[in-house]
Amino acid sequence: MGTEALVHLADERVDHRFKGLPPDAEGLTVGELAAQRRNLFTGGFTTPVLALSAERLEHNLTLMETYAARHGLAFAPHGKTSMAPQLFHRQIEHGAWGITLAMPHQVRVAREFGIQRVFLANELLDPAALRWVADQLAADADFRFICYVDSVRGVELMDAALTGTARPVDVVVELAAGEGARTGVRTEAECAAVADAVAATTTLRLVGVAGYEGEVPQPDPDRVRAWLRRLVALAVDLDMAGRFAGCDEIVVSAGGSAWFDAVADVFTEIPELSATVLKLLRSGAYVSHDDGHYRRITPFTRIPEEGVLEPAFRLWAQVVSRPSPEQAFVNAGKRDAAYDLDLPFAQVVRRDGEERPATGVSVTALSDQHAWLRTTPEADVEVGDWIGLGLSHPCTSFDKWQLIPVAEADGTVVDYIRTFF
Amino acid sequence: MGTEALVHLADERVDHRFKGLPPDAEGLTVGELAAQRRNLFTGGFTTPVLALSAERLEHNLTLMETYAARHGLAFAPHGKTSMAPQLFHRQIEHGAWGITLAMPHQVRVAREFGIQRVFLANELLDPAALRWVADQLAADADFRFICYVDSVRGVELMDAALTGTARPVDVVVELAAGEGARTGVRTEAECAAVADAVAATTTLRLVGVAGYEGEVPQPDPDRVRAWLRRLVALAVDLDMAGRFAGCDEIVVSAGGSAWFDAVADVFTEIPELSATVLKLLRSGAYVSHDDGHYRRITPFTRIPEEGVLEPAFRLWAQVVSRPSPEQAFVNAGKRDAAYDLDLPFAQVVRRDGEERPATGVSVTALSDQHAWLRTTPEADVEVGDWIGLGLSHPCTSFDKWQLIPVAEADGTVVDYIRTFF
Repeated sequence: MGTEALVHLADERVDHRFKGLPPDAEGLTVGELAAQRRNLFTGGFTTPVLALSAERLEHNLTLMETYAARHGLAFAPHGKTSMAPQLFHRQIEHGAWGITLAMPHQVRVAREFGIQRVFLANELLDPAALRWVADQLAADADFRFICYVDSVRGVELMDAALTGTARPVDVVVELAAGEGARTGVRTEAECAAVADAVAATTTLRLVGVAGYEGEVPQPDPDRVRAWLRRLVALAVDLDMAGRFAGCDEIVVSAGGSAWFDAVADVFTEIPELSATVLKLLRSGAYVSHDDGHYRRITPFTRIPEEGVLEPAFRLWAQVVSRPSPEQAFVNAGKRDAAYDLDLPFAQVVRRDGEERPATGVSVTALSDQHAWLRTTPEADVEVGDWIGLGLSHPCTSFDKWQLIPVAEADGTVVDYIRTFF
Repeated sequence: MGTEALVHLADERVDHRFKGLPPDAEGLTVGELAAQRRNLFTGGFTTPVLALSAERLEHNLTLMETYAARHGLAFAPHGKTSMAPQLFHRQIEHGAWGITLAMPHQVRVAREFGIQRVFLANELLDPAALRWVADQLAADADFRFICYVDSVRGVELMDAALTGTARPVDVVVELAAGEGARTGVRTEAECAAVADAVAATTTLRLVGVAGYEGEVPQPDPDRVRAWLRRLVALAVDLDMAGRFAGCDEIVVSAGGSAWFDAVADVFTEIPELSATVLKLLRSGAYVSHDDGHYRRITPFTRIPEEGVLEPAFRLWAQVVSRPSPEQAFVNAGKRDAAYDLDLPFAQVVRRDGEERPATGVSVTALSDQHAWLRTTPEADVEVGDWIGLGLSHPCTSFDKWQLIPVAEADGTVVDYIRTFF
């Protein structure tokens, strides 16, 4: 079913649902439009249009495949970032163990497109969603699904929802990243109580431990490593207490996009346990990377010898108004660009097919459908110009676009990425 | 075509594309699911799920219909808010002249669903989009389309893109709301120059003036009225200069969601012009209203005798973690809730079918897929509870949901609203 669904994405009609795409492509299928290899700048695309770089996307996919392999990590990239089944499959072709997700509706998308291993990095207590998961497990012996538990009450609610189901649901205890951090059990004693609660059910099976070092309070390399060592020690303690008896694999998972170097380091310290250890890294933002938040926090700034991620998004918008020498407005706003961590960055100006740096141009605010640009005297910006904007935060960039052109460096659009948010 | 497309919305399959909907409804059509009249709380919906109140939606539609009629205003509610063709049609059934939009891709959605009058409250310079508009005008003599112009260069670019088209595109001069405000011509002299530029083309026809009083710097009732009087004076001056010769209707348009009382007042002062005046109000947020920004700024606080809008959205999320007495986490985040003007407001807690005020519970932050709740000692919140959240800013609430259940007060879901962003 899944691969078939993936193939059928090319049969979708290009129509009013997909902003930025050429109006004169109405009625073509996505596959037909891709085969035309239109140019992003001259092929009838309308602004604003978000484009992914074909080369940079491939570079990032390859870099993290190499990184995970070099460090002996299994990789379940966080799919919430893109929610793009085509990218999920490319990640798996690039060696990923499976896909991490945050919400059961995201798991539905992944299952529709044939993803066989899902790590749900979240608590899941919704009875309707749990019954759906149980049905998926019952219908497909090869479907591997793991989710978090972090409270005895949560275990009880899961157990009640799952009573009578065929296969137990695999769970990992989530260890919180510290006091005041996000979800997760705060103390090792409580972890043991949650493990006890799991053991008391027949509907759940404890298979490991997990957490998110990105929420360590006031993070620095030492604090993050200290917490990762707590996580490893928790796995060891639970294993010594026989909590993973019967598991053919023990899961130890951490790793967002800011500290995977520390995860790689500390996970080398995991001793031999009673079963094979699946060291599962979950970074997701790498796939597109960005020009802001993730550019600043990526571990590759600390380990340049291992490579560098490349920002793969550029949002193209048109200058529609230039009411004063200090101001210009482009036709992309909160509906089109991420704005939760940084405003977009004006990078280049395109006029008459020529591209140059957007010197003296900066984004100062977003309205729903406009970006406000401030221009200094050295800025050369006219009504009608296209501005190429860099973005910050892949998750809130992808989620504003349902069909994203993938363009090669010369502007040739070679593919379209469908998202499901 | 349009009405047919509207009817066909009920034939869409309920599937992985639509978060929050019951997994066990997979494969039903939207119409079949609506006919089941499931209950939002017991019918298998999964959290998070955004719901619209059927009664409040109808109340708001009726209130603004009455308001516009009482004040002699034509009404083109801003459709960018919901991007929901079903709501566009209900707005038109409630007396609206047409629909205001901000972007050409939004006009494509409106046209697909048979909207015959579109006011594009924005500059439109994109050649591909302009050609598409020209084709729409050529193919349908009953399609009325009006957009902004605010620069001579913009007029020249439009003219170049439209050369050879069958019907001229109707335009209005956009008057900026002041120095440093958003788009629009800053001075009356420049307005005259833009009107000259339009007159020099055969592809464009000047039909009026427009602007957005919501961008008046440091707005108060006096400043907003002063700017509205400038807009009216501009219409009078352009008319006396013969700029609207040949028009059977002169458009004067203003009015967002914060100052439509001032618009109603000042537009009564419009004198007789050389043709009938279409006084066009464009407020859009009223359709759902909200529990934050628009609750604070709605003109109905100044004119309570004319009615009150009711917040129609509630976002339901589940408590998935309660790691300390001061903290709880629900499974809705930036992907699900507006966060650009205010964080969501915890309003009610539901447990075992009982609903009570969310005393002592507040939202302090959003992650991508979680809301962080702070709880005081008086808060009674457990893992598994549903929290009903109020939202701020309709535009950034609608755009996170593609199929939104419409529920009556007892939870019966009677309809589903499809959005196209």
